[in-house]
Amino acid sequence: MSKEITSRSEDYSKWYNDLVIKGELADYSAVRGCMVIKPYGFALWENMRDVLDNMFKQTGHVNAYFPLFVPKSLFEAEEKNAEGFAKECAVVTHYRLKADPEHKGKLIVDPEAKLEEELVVRPTSEAIIWSTYKTWIQSYRDLPLLINQWANVVRWEMRTRLFLRTAEFLWQEGHTAHATREEAVEEAVKMLHVYGDFVEQYMAVPVIRGVKSESERFAGAVDTYCIEALMQDGKALQAGTSHFLGQNFAKAFDVKFSDKQNKLDYVWATSWGVSTRLIGGLVMAHSDDEGLILPPKIAPIQLVIVPICKGEEQKAKIDAVIVPLMDRLKAKGVRVKYDDSDNQRPGWKFAEYEKKGVPLRMAIGLRDLENGQAELARRDTREKSTYSLEGFDDKVVELLADIQVSIFNKAKAFQQENITKVDTWEDFVRLLDEKPGFLSAHWDGTADTEEKIKELTKATIRCIPLDNPQEEGKCILTGKPSTQRVLFARAY
Amino acid sequence: MSKEITSRSEDYSKWYNDLVIKGELADYSAVRGCMVIKPYGFALWENMRDVLDNMFKQTGHVNAYFPLFVPKSLFEAEEKNAEGFAKECAVVTHYRLKADPEHKGKLIVDPEAKLEEELVVRPTSEAIIWSTYKTWIQSYRDLPLLINQWANVVRWEMRTRLFLRTAEFLWQEGHTAHATREEAVEEAVKMLHVYGDFVEQYMAVPVIRGVKSESERFAGAVDTYCIEALMQDGKALQAGTSHFLGQNFAKAFDVKFSDKQNKLDYVWATSWGVSTRLIGGLVMAHSDDEGLILPPKIAPIQLVIVPICKGEEQKAKIDAVIVPLMDRLKAKGVRVKYDDSDNQRPGWKFAEYEKKGVPLRMAIGLRDLENGQAELARRDTREKSTYSLEGFDDKVVELLADIQVSIFNKAKAFQQENITKVDTWEDFVRLLDEKPGFLSAHWDGTADTEEKIKELTKATIRCIPLDNPQEEGKCILTGKPSTQRVLFARAY
Ligand SMILES: [Zn+2]
Ligand SMILES: [Zn+2]
Repeated sequence: MSKEITSRSEDYSKWYNDLVIKGELADYSAVRGCMVIKPYGFALWENMRDVLDNMFKQTGHVNAYFPLFVPKSLFEAEEKNAEGFAKECAVVTHYRLKADPEHKGKLIVDPEAKLEEELVVRPTSEAIIWSTYKTWIQSYRDLPLLINQWANVVRWEMRTRLFLRTAEFLWQEGHTAHATREEAVEEAVKMLHVYGDFVEQYMAVPVIRGVKSESERFAGAVDTYCIEALMQDGKALQAGTSHFLGQNFAKAFDVKFSDKQNKLDYVWATSWGVSTRLIGGLVMAHSDDEGLILPPKIAPIQLVIVPICKGEEQKAKIDAVIVPLMDRLKAKGVRVKYDDSDNQRPGWKFAEYEKKGVPLRMAIGLRDLENGQAELARRDTREKSTYSLEGFDDKVVELLADIQVSIFNKAKAFQQENITKVDTWEDFVRLLDEKPGFLSAHWDGTADTEEKIKELTKATIRCIPLDNPQEEGKCILTGKPSTQRVLFARAY
Repeated sequence: MSKEITSRSEDYSKWYNDLVIKGELADYSAVRGCMVIKPYGFALWENMRDVLDNMFKQTGHVNAYFPLFVPKSLFEAEEKNAEGFAKECAVVTHYRLKADPEHKGKLIVDPEAKLEEELVVRPTSEAIIWSTYKTWIQSYRDLPLLINQWANVVRWEMRTRLFLRTAEFLWQEGHTAHATREEAVEEAVKMLHVYGDFVEQYMAVPVIRGVKSESERFAGAVDTYCIEALMQDGKALQAGTSHFLGQNFAKAFDVKFSDKQNKLDYVWATSWGVSTRLIGGLVMAHSDDEGLILPPKIAPIQLVIVPICKGEEQKAKIDAVIVPLMDRLKAKGVRVKYDDSDNQRPGWKFAEYEKKGVPLRMAIGLRDLENGQAELARRDTREKSTYSLEGFDDKVVELLADIQVSIFNKAKAFQQENITKVDTWEDFVRLLDEKPGFLSAHWDGTADTEEKIKELTKATIRCIPLDNPQEEGKCILTGKPSTQRVLFARAY
């Protein structure tokens, strides 16, 4: 069965695509660079979204919705932001189609319906939101403004990969406004930790929390904080970013507030986002050659039950046990599916749910029933054990918790094994091929050196970890003095 | 305070805008025809969405996500659908901006980044979805396919109104595929009833369930079912539609399935949607000259508590009662807000929450505390009563339930009073101005007559009610024979 999925060793990139498509997370679409998120993949995203949304609300944020389109003149206002995104903007220029006079049944763009000002499909919403905040913020009483939006955004990409890089993707973007620099920095760091906690505790993917070097910063930010995850091929994946925007957008859109002393000042800002890209990282962090491995806390189905029987009489006996068990499981919050469809054999179903990464599988036949027991198979270790039907629901809950911890620990051990201190350029270059992962190396702090290293090796500075130990050293490339190691890696 | 809001009698249209903006549901944006949904309005939408989403899942549907863009060639495929939406399409023609060589810091559309094929921003997703279903459906085993999508859509509008008619709006669109005509019709009717139940039971707005005449049908549908609500000015509002699409999209996109006998046939389809437009209907159905009136089941805040006191000592005494009361209320599922901010006086707060339509307001001062009681004011009737603090939480729950029923009953009585049987053209024309509402009148069944009536009176056929009694009569305009009355109204 699992022959359908290309193995990691054979072709890692094809393995990834097989998992996404055959695991039914997503599919290609008729639109270049855009994907369809299939029901199973969307259920996963819904679970992730619900947890994150709750975390945002617990930290005082509310949701709102801003327009999809950004008039070009607003888009231009914050120059660095505009410059950073200009090359990947989908642009609406017309607002009407009309019948093609030369081809019956076909349509053409109506040249008379040209917009006076072009509209950019939002690649990110700072511009449209800050043009609105201008009318919402007058006084310190209006601050802080802590707003989040769940939305689709478009960034034109030439080379796309399902979830990892698509022209349109789904995300959330927080946009906050504050009276002081300190409060805005605190917010940016707080949301970085919300992301870190979410990705580690729910997605079971360990991350490094850090800050970006200048050249990797978000266009328009003063500082970009990020969480970086490590994939099984040793490449890094930026899993979320939180930006301290200083007063850049407030100045671009003239957003001032009067403080308690009635003094006017520009507002301080943050923005922060995670996207459906996280799903790509999730897939590559845990899965194996048999298919997906999903962490129980966000898996759409946590337990699948497969009956092994022939005919209605046998089936009825199994139903008599399974139906009340399902009730007990649901009462304990377990997302359970009873796959009693009769158009596929149990062996086919086993492979199917392995491919889809369902954490636990229960198989039960007549013999089991007589013995008052059933088999549980873990997706992560593929271990099978037989358990008494008495207290079976508790066993399921216990195993789901254990799987969540186990897959995190496995990924954490992998991450730790693949952070390597490097002190010579030769080792740096060699290790990037031989033992990829994070290379912890000294850097002279200049954008020039960073650029040079990228050109030579395709490795970039993923981040300067928060609370990074300070130590004297020499830059891996230039030998110039350095005060700390930073993390390099090749990245998605 | 309520002077801020224009009265209905003075200017109904301005009253509506005042409610939406001063009730903090939405705001105008910098983008022509697009609105910003503010946090309070979005919380209302979230509550509506969560209930609907659950109803969809209970009826076997799953969520997925399809691309924002529709390539023009796909958009054209179903001719009637394309023709119906062509005039209101936002069209993406380019995928890049570049620096304007003549104006430093400005951007222009890069003429070298012109798309080979233009992309339509989805006005509805049948085309993109059915082009995908083609690859998902081969056999009867793949059917029914019951998928819903929550998304933003764009329909260019020249004259816009907050919530009621905006270029971009949020909605859900169900798109289902079936093996038989009967099953598809059944699905379309089932979802109409889901909408009807939702709007009546949660939004407390009574609706008429019916089917559209041919000229009011969705472009590409065989039948359009709809729910029609009545606003306080006697105009109708289409609150939701469910379409039986026949095999039109299956034929346009060549989607066939093999049945159990291995015979190939085109798939049968439905689509159905409700949008943020519902919020506009909600506002106009219940509100008064003091502000919004929101039904408790979907109100973002169900109860607001306003302390009446001076200084920290008094406040501490009130807190000592309110904090545990809030816990008891929350345990009962009540969405409660304690507005103990000290920068506004109680009277200001009272007006503020009336404007925002919060169903219940609790006011409590020191005297109340001594007497072991507090005041509750209902937003719908503006009645105030004093209740013992003992069992106060139960009283709140009871009153919220009563308010939900009361505002529905009030709207239902209004609807019933404003469905008028009319048998002469003179009465028809006169009543449309004197006593607007639904006019139940005979119609000869032709599109010509319908069009003529619309030209003469601006009234359209809102629907032919489901299970409409059959009776012989004469068309209100032409006097030709008719077999049933239909409902006419002027509409939003
Ligand atoms: Zn980083
Ligand atoms: Zn109708």
